[in-house]
Amino acid sequence: MSAIPESKPTLEVCLSPALFPFKQTEGDFTVVVVDILRATTSFCAALHFGVREIIPVAGLEEARRYKAEGYLVAVEREGRILEFADFGNSAYNFMTPVVVGKTIAYSTTNGTQAIEVARNAQHLLIGAFTNISVLTEFLLQETPNVVILCAGWKNKVNLEDTLFAGALAARLVAGGRYFTDCDAANAALDLWEIARDDPRAYLEKAQHRERLRRLAVDDVIPYTYALDSTPVLPALVEGVLKDILKSS
Amino acid sequence: MSAIPESKPTLEVCLSPALFPFKQTEGDFTVVVVDILRATTSFCAALHFGVREIIPVAGLEEARRYKAEGYLVAVEREGRILEFADFGNSAYNFMTPVVVGKTIAYSTTNGTQAIEVARNAQHLLIGAFTNISVLTEFLLQETPNVVILCAGWKNKVNLEDTLFAGALAARLVAGGRYFTDCDAANAALDLWEIARDDPRAYLEKAQHRERLRRLAVDDVIPYTYALDSTPVLPALVEGVLKDILKSS
Repeated sequence: MSAIPESKPTLEVCLSPALFPFKQTEGDFTVVVVDILRATTSFCAALHFGVREIIPVAGLEEARRYKAEGYLVAVEREGRILEFADFGNSAYNFMTPVVVGKTIAYSTTNGTQAIEVARNAQHLLIGAFTNISVLTEFLLQETPNVVILCAGWKNKVNLEDTLFAGALAARLVAGGRYFTDCDAANAALDLWEIARDDPRAYLEKAQHRERLRRLAVDDVIPYTYALDSTPVLPALVEGVLKDILKSS
Repeated sequence: MSAIPESKPTLEVCLSPALFPFKQTEGDFTVVVVDILRATTSFCAALHFGVREIIPVAGLEEARRYKAEGYLVAVEREGRILEFADFGNSAYNFMTPVVVGKTIAYSTTNGTQAIEVARNAQHLLIGAFTNISVLTEFLLQETPNVVILCAGWKNKVNLEDTLFAGALAARLVAGGRYFTDCDAANAALDLWEIARDDPRAYLEKAQHRERLRRLAVDDVIPYTYALDSTPVLPALVEGVLKDILKSS
């Protein structure tokens, strides 16, 4: 990475983990994993409110193993907290002194699966509306090639992750700092342009929001779309998510 | 299929063949395969201008075998006609008396791969801007559950197929005839809303258009986005594409 690149860094968007194998970016690049509802928003909240580090866990067996070893574990499936878990996956669960200084194993339907897919990227960062400005600042300073990876919903495209990809892309291509010829990036940029004045209203039609409303965990929605409430920058370092702004 | 459904038929969009395995539609459904540049536009042109039937072929070996058996073959890779082929994949290639009454083996990068993925659907139809009205009319009359499958570009999302998905979706959900809670469908609908007044201008930014321009096969673009120039309805019947409006 160089502060003054010879040519512009490139930007690409994958709208689903299933599309990550077909990305065109080669060489060194940074992946930004996005799972707005809810993993990446919750990662940011957890690290902001004092969690030391987060172990992203894909499978339930692995989560149970961490629980048996004495870790705090956050596990949710289909929006419901599993019986053996200490927490669900909502950002609100981590706003408590209980978590300060702790390592938490976090498993969820889509977010950790997206991290698994991109685990071998040179750098893996976590993006959410709640940390978008520090994330943008970091990328504009370091100028890596960027692949924004939307977690989606069981590999299906979802609107909230797509919108965030558009919001981040808009900040990176502003003033011509980043270059993109990726159609998914252009689609996300245009959708963000429609939604930017009121993302929550736009997302009223998102499938996932319907599902969360039915499960009555709807109260976290306004928090999710508030910008920059948790100015942390989670990155995957040796398999564990840490706030690299804090550790540097 | 029923002319008066008990409940509304559903609409879902897959933005890439790689996402087709994750579709949510179950039971009986009709897939509409879309590869605007260029397979599905060319299938419509070929059948409209007199080709009897089209054998969609995924691999080059299979295409060579059809050639050896005496079939006319249309083969293009990366936008270039291969040396053993009779035609490339452009719609313009089929506007000639040579093709009338013939069976053509057609292989191309993305379109036939999308057909392969969806081959086991109950019904498989071909969609393009050039046959959008007869396609819409058929679906509104038969009211099957519909999955619009975008061929994309080497499994990446592309804008032109996404826009067509939005254009077709807009006609199906108009007046509440079809129901969708698919985020990809909603995204496509919104992008079409932006582009509908001038799709060609909108698609100036599409990757694929750049590629075609470089290859100087740009002349087919205006034809591609003209609505309803070829009112045929290609469907896959026993592995072969035929115009079902003609045969019925």
